[in-house]
Amino acid sequence: MAGVTAKRRLLHISDGRQEVRFDDLAAEEPLEIRVDGSALAVTMRTPGNDFELVAGFLLTEGVVDRAEQIRTLRYCVDADETQEFNVLNADLSPDAPGRAAGERTFMTTSSCGLCGKASIETVRARATFDVNGDDISVTPSVLASLPDRLRAAQRVFDSTGGLHAAGLFTADGDLVCLREDVGRHNAFDKVIGWAALEGRLPLRGHVILASGRASFELVQKALMAGIPMLASVSAPSTLAVQLAEESGMTLVGFLRGLTMNVYTGEHRVST
Amino acid sequence: MAGVTAKRRLLHISDGRQEVRFDDLAAEEPLEIRVDGSALAVTMRTPGNDFELVAGFLLTEGVVDRAEQIRTLRYCVDADETQEFNVLNADLSPDAPGRAAGERTFMTTSSCGLCGKASIETVRARATFDVNGDDISVTPSVLASLPDRLRAAQRVFDSTGGLHAAGLFTADGDLVCLREDVGRHNAFDKVIGWAALEGRLPLRGHVILASGRASFELVQKALMAGIPMLASVSAPSTLAVQLAEESGMTLVGFLRGLTMNVYTGEHRVST
Repeated sequence: MAGVTAKRRLLHISDGRQEVRFDDLAAEEPLEIRVDGSALAVTMRTPGNDFELVAGFLLTEGVVDRAEQIRTLRYCVDADETQEFNVLNADLSPDAPGRAAGERTFMTTSSCGLCGKASIETVRARATFDVNGDDISVTPSVLASLPDRLRAAQRVFDSTGGLHAAGLFTADGDLVCLREDVGRHNAFDKVIGWAALEGRLPLRGHVILASGRASFELVQKALMAGIPMLASVSAPSTLAVQLAEESGMTLVGFLRGLTMNVYTGEHRVST
Repeated sequence: MAGVTAKRRLLHISDGRQEVRFDDLAAEEPLEIRVDGSALAVTMRTPGNDFELVAGFLLTEGVVDRAEQIRTLRYCVDADETQEFNVLNADLSPDAPGRAAGERTFMTTSSCGLCGKASIETVRARATFDVNGDDISVTPSVLASLPDRLRAAQRVFDSTGGLHAAGLFTADGDLVCLREDVGRHNAFDKVIGWAALEGRLPLRGHVILASGRASFELVQKALMAGIPMLASVSAPSTLAVQLAEESGMTLVGFLRGLTMNVYTGEHRVST
């Protein structure tokens, strides 16, 4: 298993000058997720926090309803009993809803999270938690502080420029959990999987911050974890806004200093 | 079918001032790709250029070796004979290699492009074109001009901030084809699908520019189209660099004005 970053030789060109340098790159490797021994998904991820990633994936995809349905998580061993750090097996309890659906294979790369029919209706039917009753209140100044807090806590981004981050915050802006990955969806799954393994779901009263754009799948994942507010430093898509609105989630985009757009759930932004 | 953008009501907050605005958002909708009537993949994409997207997907996934194996592309009709603009069927000729593999289902969102085993070995075995003999020569000043040319040609990005772009250029920096999408991989598939439907594959002598990060899947897609040089305004991952090196492709990252990093295939950057 590679580390989170790797040094790489390159030719740096600047205004006609050339120099050979060795810079850090964000690691990207395939992880095969197996359920009860059968392949369920291959995701391209940054190694690290793999157990959290798999727990989060199983939860946000509806393969399990709750963390207790995951009995064990372990790396597989190959024929000569060497541990395979790119193959991880989850043993599920018999009542896990997605167990029977294990023959379906997900193939995902740097941003993936939909299963079954990619329709809003399917997702809404699957969501275990309702965020409508979660009347968290967050001030614009707290929201404005989140991107800087995320960046300050990011260990890897500054050295590679290639990692997305997801940060889980309290309504007062305290950072609860930060995870990084080449894929936005993986960073979300790692945060949600961490919370699941800690017994913290649903994540009522929390805000999750995405370092990139807010796509449909990120809203979906936040919803599956019961998070009532998602903030992004960049643009949301039409479908992200639609799902946030229909599920009662607050969606904030273009969060840049004290300037931001509140697309849905304005009542949670106290002004 | 929605358009490429949609107006959306939002609450804009800036330094304590609030105003209701209507901004453009990038459209994101599921597209189900069927092969000979059977579901193969669901991808989250920005509507538009759907035929190109599907042609590019089939080629870069190895479902077809060449465009001629795609006999027809058409939107499906539902029970009451209304056209379904989110379901597109490809009829393939009997010699299409991926036809038998049609039972495998891809589930993809904003960034997807791996099929079968997500290993470099599998990809290398599948690549139809060899870029090693393609001795294109591009100057740093031409490379430096590409991001501005891409942005100038982007119709949608300025209004939504939410779309990735892929631009195909000649070695002299002339823009040949530009496509946009919420997913980087879709933008690449649309460009490559356009070239395929125009009978232009392999894309010898060309450079493809990505508006975001250079992940493994983007290098893979460029390789499947025979493109010898990939440039990105942001960071590459370890696996992207590894695949570019092993396949003889030139990979340029952090392309910002006259400053850039050449990770592999330096001989094609003439200095």
